[in-house]
Amino acid sequence: MSDNSFGKIFKVTTFGESHGPAIGAVIDGMPAGVEIDASFLQAELDRRRPGGGTPGSTARNEADHAEILSGVFENRSTGTPIAVLIRNADHHSSDYSELKDLFRPGHADWGFHAKYGFRDYRGGGRSSGRETACRVAAGAFAKMLLKKLVPELAVRAFPVEIGGVGIEKCDFGEMAENPLRVPDSRSAAKMLERMESCRREQDSCGGVVECHVSGVPAGWGEPVFDKLDALLAHAILSIGAVKAFAVGAGFEAARLAGSVNNASPDAAGGIRGGISDGTEIRFQAAVKPTPSIPRPQMMPGVDGQLHEFAIKGRHDVCIVPRVVPVVEAMTALVLADCALRRRCARV
Amino acid sequence: MSDNSFGKIFKVTTFGESHGPAIGAVIDGMPAGVEIDASFLQAELDRRRPGGGTPGSTARNEADHAEILSGVFENRSTGTPIAVLIRNADHHSSDYSELKDLFRPGHADWGFHAKYGFRDYRGGGRSSGRETACRVAAGAFAKMLLKKLVPELAVRAFPVEIGGVGIEKCDFGEMAENPLRVPDSRSAAKMLERMESCRREQDSCGGVVECHVSGVPAGWGEPVFDKLDALLAHAILSIGAVKAFAVGAGFEAARLAGSVNNASPDAAGGIRGGISDGTEIRFQAAVKPTPSIPRPQMMPGVDGQLHEFAIKGRHDVCIVPRVVPVVEAMTALVLADCALRRRCARV
Amino acid sequence: MSDNSFGKIFKVTTFGESHGPAIGAVIDGMPAGVEIDASFLQAELDRRRPGGGTPGSTARNEADHAEILSGVFENRSTGTPIAVLIRNADHHSSDYSELKDLFRPGHADWGFHAKYGFRDYRGGGRSSGRETACRVAAGAFAKMLLKKLVPELAVRAFPVEIGGVGIEKCDFGEMAENPLRVPDSRSAAKMLERMESCRREQDSCGGVVECHVSGVPAGWGEPVFDKLDALLAHAILSIGAVKAFAVGAGFEAARLAGSVNNASPDAAGGIRGGISDGTEIRFQAAVKPTPSIPRPQMMPGVDGQLHEFAIKGRHDVCIVPRVVPVVEAMTALVLADCALRRRCARV
Amino acid sequence: MSDNSFGKIFKVTTFGESHGPAIGAVIDGMPAGVEIDASFLQAELDRRRPGGGTPGSTARNEADHAEILSGVFENRSTGTPIAVLIRNADHHSSDYSELKDLFRPGHADWGFHAKYGFRDYRGGGRSSGRETACRVAAGAFAKMLLKKLVPELAVRAFPVEIGGVGIEKCDFGEMAENPLRVPDSRSAAKMLERMESCRREQDSCGGVVECHVSGVPAGWGEPVFDKLDALLAHAILSIGAVKAFAVGAGFEAARLAGSVNNASPDAAGGIRGGISDGTEIRFQAAVKPTPSIPRPQMMPGVDGQLHEFAIKGRHDVCIVPRVVPVVEAMTALVLADCALRRRCARV
Repeated sequence: MSDNSFGKIFKVTTFGESHGPAIGAVIDGMPAGVEIDASFLQAELDRRRPGGGTPGSTARNEADHAEILSGVFENRSTGTPIAVLIRNADHHSSDYSELKDLFRPGHADWGFHAKYGFRDYRGGGRSSGRETACRVAAGAFAKMLLKKLVPELAVRAFPVEIGGVGIEKCDFGEMAENPLRVPDSRSAAKMLERMESCRREQDSCGGVVECHVSGVPAGWGEPVFDKLDALLAHAILSIGAVKAFAVGAGFEAARLAGSVNNASPDAAGGIRGGISDGTEIRFQAAVKPTPSIPRPQMMPGVDGQLHEFAIKGRHDVCIVPRVVPVVEAMTALVLADCALRRRCARV
Repeated sequence: MSDNSFGKIFKVTTFGESHGPAIGAVIDGMPAGVEIDASFLQAELDRRRPGGGTPGSTARNEADHAEILSGVFENRSTGTPIAVLIRNADHHSSDYSELKDLFRPGHADWGFHAKYGFRDYRGGGRSSGRETACRVAAGAFAKMLLKKLVPELAVRAFPVEIGGVGIEKCDFGEMAENPLRVPDSRSAAKMLERMESCRREQDSCGGVVECHVSGVPAGWGEPVFDKLDALLAHAILSIGAVKAFAVGAGFEAARLAGSVNNASPDAAGGIRGGISDGTEIRFQAAVKPTPSIPRPQMMPGVDGQLHEFAIKGRHDVCIVPRVVPVVEAMTALVLADCALRRRCARV
Repeated sequence: MSDNSFGKIFKVTTFGESHGPAIGAVIDGMPAGVEIDASFLQAELDRRRPGGGTPGSTARNEADHAEILSGVFENRSTGTPIAVLIRNADHHSSDYSELKDLFRPGHADWGFHAKYGFRDYRGGGRSSGRETACRVAAGAFAKMLLKKLVPELAVRAFPVEIGGVGIEKCDFGEMAENPLRVPDSRSAAKMLERMESCRREQDSCGGVVECHVSGVPAGWGEPVFDKLDALLAHAILSIGAVKAFAVGAGFEAARLAGSVNNASPDAAGGIRGGISDGTEIRFQAAVKPTPSIPRPQMMPGVDGQLHEFAIKGRHDVCIVPRVVPVVEAMTALVLADCALRRRCARV
Repeated sequence: MSDNSFGKIFKVTTFGESHGPAIGAVIDGMPAGVEIDASFLQAELDRRRPGGGTPGSTARNEADHAEILSGVFENRSTGTPIAVLIRNADHHSSDYSELKDLFRPGHADWGFHAKYGFRDYRGGGRSSGRETACRVAAGAFAKMLLKKLVPELAVRAFPVEIGGVGIEKCDFGEMAENPLRVPDSRSAAKMLERMESCRREQDSCGGVVECHVSGVPAGWGEPVFDKLDALLAHAILSIGAVKAFAVGAGFEAARLAGSVNNASPDAAGGIRGGISDGTEIRFQAAVKPTPSIPRPQMMPGVDGQLHEFAIKGRHDVCIVPRVVPVVEAMTALVLADCALRRRCARV
């Protein structure tokens, strides 16, 4: 029961391996009557695309052309499932055959082997970061729905720390000025230096992504198990490299006095008791450094021995910039679902 | 669609308000043939119980006697749903009537009002911390199942920080020596002091709970949306006061070089690519200070005005010790579900 | 994964065995603001109650008092789960101990044993018809919701055939005139005779229940897997003794020419392509004769041998009249769920 | 919440409209390690294909080539979702434009309009029978799983009545002798005559499909809401043209005495109390005549008026033979899910 679906009313199911014929997503639960903007879908996918000029990303050029197969008629959603297909254009299976009997450190290889008995080892197979393209595609539809339901709602994610370099201010006007889209161009320059030194050292680095959501009305999220922050935590931790999630003051809240925490408008992060309170929602996600690095590493094999091996292929020195649209997509998926669930809360 | 259920195969549904006749849980999906130990169930509930000598907790004496209504025959689970009923013995509704038209800071009151149009305001109603007794009850059954399936599996949560005072060592042998069950008795003494000073100041404090799970076999958790850490994050953030979740190195991972992170056995926290790797699972949860404090606070009312009001009643100065068994319970629920889902992973 | 829940947005979970302490239901997904009428709930339960004067039913006097434990405040639903508890007052476990190692014909005994390895054999345990009291309780809440959402909606089930005796007309005015609540009092008299002769012969008989639902707006039900008639079939076949379901012309439709079927207003039974068309919904359920009969029968045992055994206790000669409120309840549960799902069909 | 998914652990999600670019299915929950036979998949699709020589079917030649996009590696399932894509090769949208503002009798057109506000009217869109190709594709994978888990399990469906002509014997040896694959060649000849006369009259006819499943072990199906026969009823009624479902003696059971019913080995149809008893499972489905007939019919329009209109295009005179593989597919889907759910029934 691997359950490759996310959401209850607005539900996405994804499929596909890195080096199979295609990956894709089925969005079930989109209400009828939403304008579907195929160019917006493509633009969202392009934000995540590697080799698209994003600093820190691989040279691999994935076309990531999305084809809408169903659920749309005369540019509007029909209420039936929307399937999106993305062909895998650029797969060099030969790059990966040597990894067949090795378990890469920091990857799901060993877990897959233990769970399923064997695995599609080509490029990470199902556990490849490529899978997140389907999330971004689905998230684009969630954003289209949200735009229709709550036009003022805006989801904005951005890096606030890369390789240990944090931002010193948050000025959204500066996001367009630097290729990392960090709201502090001076810090962005330092982050790029840090990434470049990682690349020289055949190493990688991680960082922290922050997400702000404005315009969410009070009353979204459920009181007990499906608290809005619990759903967001689930969504964000389901992104491969994420190791931590914090809403509002996060770990800092643990150190505040109750009187201070109560009086701080931002401490709650826009969610109290699991339900949106109508103020801006804020959370952070910690992204670990990508485990695929060019330098030789020791890795266990199916033979039970440790092997020194250098992973070939093209890898991101830092995936933080590419995680940004995925964080936005997962956030939009949670919110679209909550918006529809909200419809059933009262008579 | 408030969905008061958690889990897919091992599934718990809870019900009940703080000041209604009873609260309870229905555990559906317990396989047949598990020995049911009613005294263990009661012992788990007693760990969470306020007024039971736990430092920092209210004087309210909730009996929390659990009655098993179904699903057990001759001390074994039958495969049918197990319902557990806990009567609300000690409710003084009059304590709360003044809060009818006020929204307490840091609580779900306003969210409930915005969502449902009105609320059972007595003692927090459904959003009372009392609801967690049902989680602990359900978690006790999850532990019974896990004990049968993987006898060596052990879930152990404990505070590592209270009111800004952190532990300096982790010696489980010292847990029994201090009432906070902190694995560092000297730090525990400082934490108790910190709590006492909060009480004097009519204030409250939060902290950090850490959880270690040993004995989980490799292969639990699902590759994409239901990664083991994503399920745990969902579970833990669904506990009322929790504001952050971190697995393994957590936010610190964002600052490590990839080569260091790969080589650090603990950085992954026992979960790689969302699947358990067979090593100990470790995560942390940040608990905010309880928002109910005795000192007068400003709170908005249904009339749109701010009112100064002192919340009466008996409140915890620090709920961290009482969150510990809830963290364990939610963890056990996730693991029991994963254990059963694992059964369907291969032919 | 026995999944003792039914419904997706309006969802009921039931629990309890015939001879345990209690049975009950948790209704999750009831929107806030519905007037809750506890006396209507009790009246619905009384309709199903055995020994309540319903012809053909056992002498067993089950009090079936329903206690509402949660989810209701000041006589309105709050949006949180509604738990209903029904204590088992009249259980004589000693009646059943001889059945411990036997599998009664026509019952689930053997299936339970094969599935779970053992069973709570007292009075049928979980597979007792007693379980349907929880459905009727949940159905009462579904009816309260429907009454609020679509006041003109009416669900009416009634026997149209008992022991091979069918009705010759359908005059709802006559339902109150006969204890079977059959819309044809002359046929009802013949049915009662047939039942009486079954009783004398220590035998039992079955029949057919028909259900009419007026007032359902066009557009309820889903296009593919959750067609309205598919959901109804699922609901009705989940009632223990039901062996067949037919909507509209049912099996007769298989014999009609397309031109005739298209032109017949009743052939579709109010559902076309799985979606309500705004006309009256009509379907039938075939109820088998109750398998528990007083005369000695041959039954297999755990020892692999056949044993002659006469089931003691009090049994219904015909459960058709008692199935009627259960059919209504399951229908109401399906419709309440469809009504809420309908809310998410368009923007 | 249209929920285009079926199944709980072995779960299929379908998508696609009759005249969009493609239709398809995602099978999630297939355990790893099942041999995948692409030629068997294609052969199953060919059985359902119109114009493939099946008597009574349209001349439309749909290639229905299935492409497996994911979830299979070196001819074995990997445990990740299996996506199957079928391009729509032969769509003549111009055939349907005149139906844009009309609601065809016996079709879902009006329901779709009422539910969604508009519809993809081309060829029935989502409610086209073409959607069943995805069920057959998914069913082929369910059969592959069942073959691995229970090699002796066999699902066999066949017509037992067409246009009012029933079979007089059931000799499976004769199925290969007639194009309708009816187990009674003499009756098959009469059925073909009946279909031919319907065609001449520009009319259509329906029939009854029976399904036998041998080899199901005792213990499949769940005790309460997900009884095996309830799941089958849901599955079978979700097929567009089906109006009734009967297991075992079906409606005839309602006329039997309890003593007779108990003693009849076939009356239960292999399912007692909702759980398989280890004997052959038998059920029937009533298929209404296809509502699309060439002769002019009166149909309501969006303008509220009745219009006389003759539906152009190529239509089946009798879809019963094409429903047969769909019944088998839905049955296999239910059984595959039950087989996996069974794994969690006991420790």
